[in-house]
Amino acid sequence: MKQNIYDHEAFFSRYKALRQNDSGLNGVLEVPALRAQLPPLAGLRVLDLGCGFGDFARWARSQAAACVTGVDASWRMIEEARALTVDDPGIAYRQAAIEDYEAPAGAYDVVVSSLALHYVAGYAQAVQRMHRALKSGGRLVFSVEHPICTADPSGWVQGSGGQALHWPVDRYSDESARITRWLVDGVVKHHRTVATYVNTLLQAGFRLRHLGEPVPTPQGLAARPQLRSHLRRPAFLLLAADKPAA
Amino acid sequence: MKQNIYDHEAFFSRYKALRQNDSGLNGVLEVPALRAQLPPLAGLRVLDLGCGFGDFARWARSQAAACVTGVDASWRMIEEARALTVDDPGIAYRQAAIEDYEAPAGAYDVVVSSLALHYVAGYAQAVQRMHRALKSGGRLVFSVEHPICTADPSGWVQGSGGQALHWPVDRYSDESARITRWLVDGVVKHHRTVATYVNTLLQAGFRLRHLGEPVPTPQGLAARPQLRSHLRRPAFLLLAADKPAA
Repeated sequence: MKQNIYDHEAFFSRYKALRQNDSGLNGVLEVPALRAQLPPLAGLRVLDLGCGFGDFARWARSQAAACVTGVDASWRMIEEARALTVDDPGIAYRQAAIEDYEAPAGAYDVVVSSLALHYVAGYAQAVQRMHRALKSGGRLVFSVEHPICTADPSGWVQGSGGQALHWPVDRYSDESARITRWLVDGVVKHHRTVATYVNTLLQAGFRLRHLGEPVPTPQGLAARPQLRSHLRRPAFLLLAADKPAA
Repeated sequence: MKQNIYDHEAFFSRYKALRQNDSGLNGVLEVPALRAQLPPLAGLRVLDLGCGFGDFARWARSQAAACVTGVDASWRMIEEARALTVDDPGIAYRQAAIEDYEAPAGAYDVVVSSLALHYVAGYAQAVQRMHRALKSGGRLVFSVEHPICTADPSGWVQGSGGQALHWPVDRYSDESARITRWLVDGVVKHHRTVATYVNTLLQAGFRLRHLGEPVPTPQGLAARPQLRSHLRRPAFLLLAADKPAA
């Protein structure tokens, strides 16, 4: 059975609080980096895989996207997302695992997925379906936890005073599940290498546009000095690719 | 002044012994991975940047490459390379720093560079010159030490018994020189991120074909169990890219 940690009650309430407080990295680091790789969304059809509470869907509509389909495995998140957009016929939500969701072929101009694919075991299948869902000339943009972080999920190695000495890397070529703690115990992440993230896209017919390892902006660092740790090892891997015109 | 560690006497003699004994990783890991990304070389014109003793040049000629130009900053290496191919008019050597070497525009079908560009400060300039040197439809293949390795060059963190615990990553986003010891003290490597290695190619007009983080083969591991450490963190980054037809 596919993991759906977001329907775990304790996880869900903690995750919701985290997002509402924007105390996560996403808002200052991952969201701007991902948006910077999108084309202007006006009039475009957008598919968001791992849509969570629908933040991206609502933002995309504010940018005049023609319509947005949000897909998430969590019925709790889908329910919350739906409650926030009952009056917008341009947003539709579907409950499904990312690798199982079969969008109509060529139905979308843009496919996005924010920090979701490292939870998915079937990355190659997900890539094939994302490729099929895009029309020719369409754009895929997604972010994942960086393989440097998922390889050995034990986190910063600390000195005797509790200070972060360095980030450990181990088992890098061992592409398999890692059981970690994030808000709750037993969260399963699927580690894969940068090579696999990139080459699977190329083999599916995508053309790579950009590989990002976003770092905090100088303004972000000034406002929140604790973000400096993200200069020491990359938190996220961001990939942007086009489906070439046939 | 550009670094040319290969003309340092102690370094040179130790490096030559290393290569002659094939006790380095190159022979079992990097060379096969790099060659696997090349087109069949028969009849092609090849540029090898950082040619060393000319091993690749001689191999390319054995594959019926039309001609090979080898470029290296080290006159000692160029001299040794020339001595090995005095009877082959299809191989020419030039002494120059990689980022300074100006090949004729569109003169080559293939440009290769094996474990040399992490010694070069001017990567973007080198990429522009490699792009210019290739004809349309030509192929660039190069390897560098993996950014996971160059970020913090202090090497495996060891336990009290001397065993390797993990590889440390630090200063990843700090793209600058790292002073390391390899055979001698004071070897300067230029750390840059995976993102910079890839995006500089894309911005120059290359189309990415493959991103490799090669690991030892099962046969290689059976013959040399000490290579297992290279499953724990990637030693090399390999990039293959095409110059699209105009």
